[in-house]
Amino acid sequence: MYNNQEYNKESFQNFHIPEDKSIIGKFNVHQKSGNARRATLWTNHGPIETPVFMAVGTKATVKAMTPEELIENGCQVVLGNTYHLHLRPGEKLIKNLGGLHEFMNWHGPILTDSGGFQVFSLSQLRNLSEKGVEFRSHIDGQKCFLSPETSMQIQMDLGSDIIMAFDECLKYPATPEEVKESMALTLRWLKRSKDAMTRKESLLFGIVQGGLDINMRKESLEQITSVDLPGYALGGLSVGEPIELMHELVAQVAPLMPVDKPRYLMGVGTPLDLILSIDSGIDMFDCVMPTRVARNGTIFTWQGKLSIKRAEFKEDKTPLDPECSCYTCKNYSKAYLRHLFMTGEILGSRLNTIHNLHFYFQLMKKSRESIANGTWPEFRDYCLARFTTKT
Amino acid sequence: MYNNQEYNKESFQNFHIPEDKSIIGKFNVHQKSGNARRATLWTNHGPIETPVFMAVGTKATVKAMTPEELIENGCQVVLGNTYHLHLRPGEKLIKNLGGLHEFMNWHGPILTDSGGFQVFSLSQLRNLSEKGVEFRSHIDGQKCFLSPETSMQIQMDLGSDIIMAFDECLKYPATPEEVKESMALTLRWLKRSKDAMTRKESLLFGIVQGGLDINMRKESLEQITSVDLPGYALGGLSVGEPIELMHELVAQVAPLMPVDKPRYLMGVGTPLDLILSIDSGIDMFDCVMPTRVARNGTIFTWQGKLSIKRAEFKEDKTPLDPECSCYTCKNYSKAYLRHLFMTGEILGSRLNTIHNLHFYFQLMKKSRESIANGTWPEFRDYCLARFTTKT
Repeated sequence: MYNNQEYNKESFQNFHIPEDKSIIGKFNVHQKSGNARRATLWTNHGPIETPVFMAVGTKATVKAMTPEELIENGCQVVLGNTYHLHLRPGEKLIKNLGGLHEFMNWHGPILTDSGGFQVFSLSQLRNLSEKGVEFRSHIDGQKCFLSPETSMQIQMDLGSDIIMAFDECLKYPATPEEVKESMALTLRWLKRSKDAMTRKESLLFGIVQGGLDINMRKESLEQITSVDLPGYALGGLSVGEPIELMHELVAQVAPLMPVDKPRYLMGVGTPLDLILSIDSGIDMFDCVMPTRVARNGTIFTWQGKLSIKRAEFKEDKTPLDPECSCYTCKNYSKAYLRHLFMTGEILGSRLNTIHNLHFYFQLMKKSRESIANGTWPEFRDYCLARFTTKT
Repeated sequence: MYNNQEYNKESFQNFHIPEDKSIIGKFNVHQKSGNARRATLWTNHGPIETPVFMAVGTKATVKAMTPEELIENGCQVVLGNTYHLHLRPGEKLIKNLGGLHEFMNWHGPILTDSGGFQVFSLSQLRNLSEKGVEFRSHIDGQKCFLSPETSMQIQMDLGSDIIMAFDECLKYPATPEEVKESMALTLRWLKRSKDAMTRKESLLFGIVQGGLDINMRKESLEQITSVDLPGYALGGLSVGEPIELMHELVAQVAPLMPVDKPRYLMGVGTPLDLILSIDSGIDMFDCVMPTRVARNGTIFTWQGKLSIKRAEFKEDKTPLDPECSCYTCKNYSKAYLRHLFMTGEILGSRLNTIHNLHFYFQLMKKSRESIANGTWPEFRDYCLARFTTKT
């Protein structure tokens, strides 16, 4: 690991801050296979090869991982949470310490969400107005306020490479009237977000909402893409709706998104979700799933999911996944990982997280390779056969 | 870290299982400075350079660390706990999986305690007899039994390199009669331990008891060393007695222990304890302190202890210890470590543990170097000046 004091710098040697800032925001599509795309997005902390899965680093750390471990398992981008970082330790503190990259020692690209999703899912006593959202912190009940302007300011203070517009995340289910109203507000907030986002090193992405109705989604897409931006996301999905509905909607909406801009499906998802969405033309993903379930003992493998706590693994000498080349699989048995889980040892969380992230990053790497070399349909079908639980 | 699948093997390249088993147990004292000694103890998993601090790996893992991280921070020996491993996952399971080294992927020397200390401190409903101790597991209340014979069998099944005799750990304070009786029992149990310890690759260490009375200790020392063994330990210290008493007793007893055998002070201690004890002639130490307090945010530095949660560190850009070259100090600020601690992040436990272990291993390395090059008195006094809180 860090037998070399310069290790961290070495790990990030491929992530240069570009001297020519005009490259920032460039999105080059190299190959296509149906709707699936193999592309490169240029940020202020280097290129992102897509399709990409972004590791969630909510509170300035991808839980249980060092930056070196992320790099070595194939991580390209870390996602930070505006809501959480605003509450603790505060964006001004992070700015004073040199920004989020420096603070958490991650020198590759960082995407930050707008805080909207957490305000609507975590906080109490929300008071929504045209101006923004007043809410109470889920930590100490302290009164806070987020608006397009404050969200942009926080994300700029963090020094984020990709900044998400501040939008309203509607609950599911919602009535058509609620969806319509929310879409209009989200559009007005997007325009204010764009006006407030003055940091030239950062890229602002707009977020398409519109619930689960395809026509509403199309309308929102039209509205949001009427604002010229370096990238667009699909938000408000994976929030409790039936998964088939989400797949269907992504399949219909993703191909309609601008072809020359990155397409980001927020908060998604399972390996199956990722493969289906790449096939529909999505380029970027993020999800707490691989890290969160790892700590609960759920493991993703090329043979499907497994729960490490199961008694059948008590004396199992084999690795989590015979097809995996991660540190965990090269060095530890299921029996040992089960023991670590049953005794609540931190090393168990670490080793499971390494494996799950490695699996997700490998899934993306193989997707990129197969799109590039023309074997995407085969790879996609291979994955679907393995990850579809119903036969 | 593990950008190389053979990494683990490389990490342990200095730990060869000796082909010539006759070297096992050899103890070569290279230099002396007063009572302090610089020596090498040969085990079935390679040499241990003393003075040495052994990392406590209670349940087959040094909490929050990988084996590679231990190695790279200077760890030579890991301590496993017979009591805990017997209850979970069980020594037979570990034996079937190739032994404790293989199970936990640590290929350096392992010392196991006898389980006695935990039986007397953790378990309920103890029933002590000449034969052994009946007790109930602190996990599920299950009835268990430990004796010299069962403890040896467990430690042999684990494949331990250094096996501790099964002794009675008396509570503090105890009456002279209780101490005397306990010493006699401990001697009888030592003889039974030796008879039961039939694994030629393992070294059996006897444990000197005798409470805090110097004469009792001398008597116990005489009794225990009447049994010929490759090493001897001082047990029953650091169990709540005033620390000055412990220092005094070690200063008086350690020099009386066999000069040609390793001397192990069990369960000790603070940096100050270690320096004073090395000066009295102790060679080996173990303690949960650096790892346990790390997870609670207490940090050892060359300027003394600090608590990372203190508000003064909120925006502190400096590392934990400006004199430290560990991964944590090379890469992270106090402000970030405080944030990780306040948000309960696993990475905080990891980074603090790395630093504290690195500090302890450096303290031992510098002790070895200074004994070897004749500057021990200076180094000792330098440490005493820094670690003694009272002026």
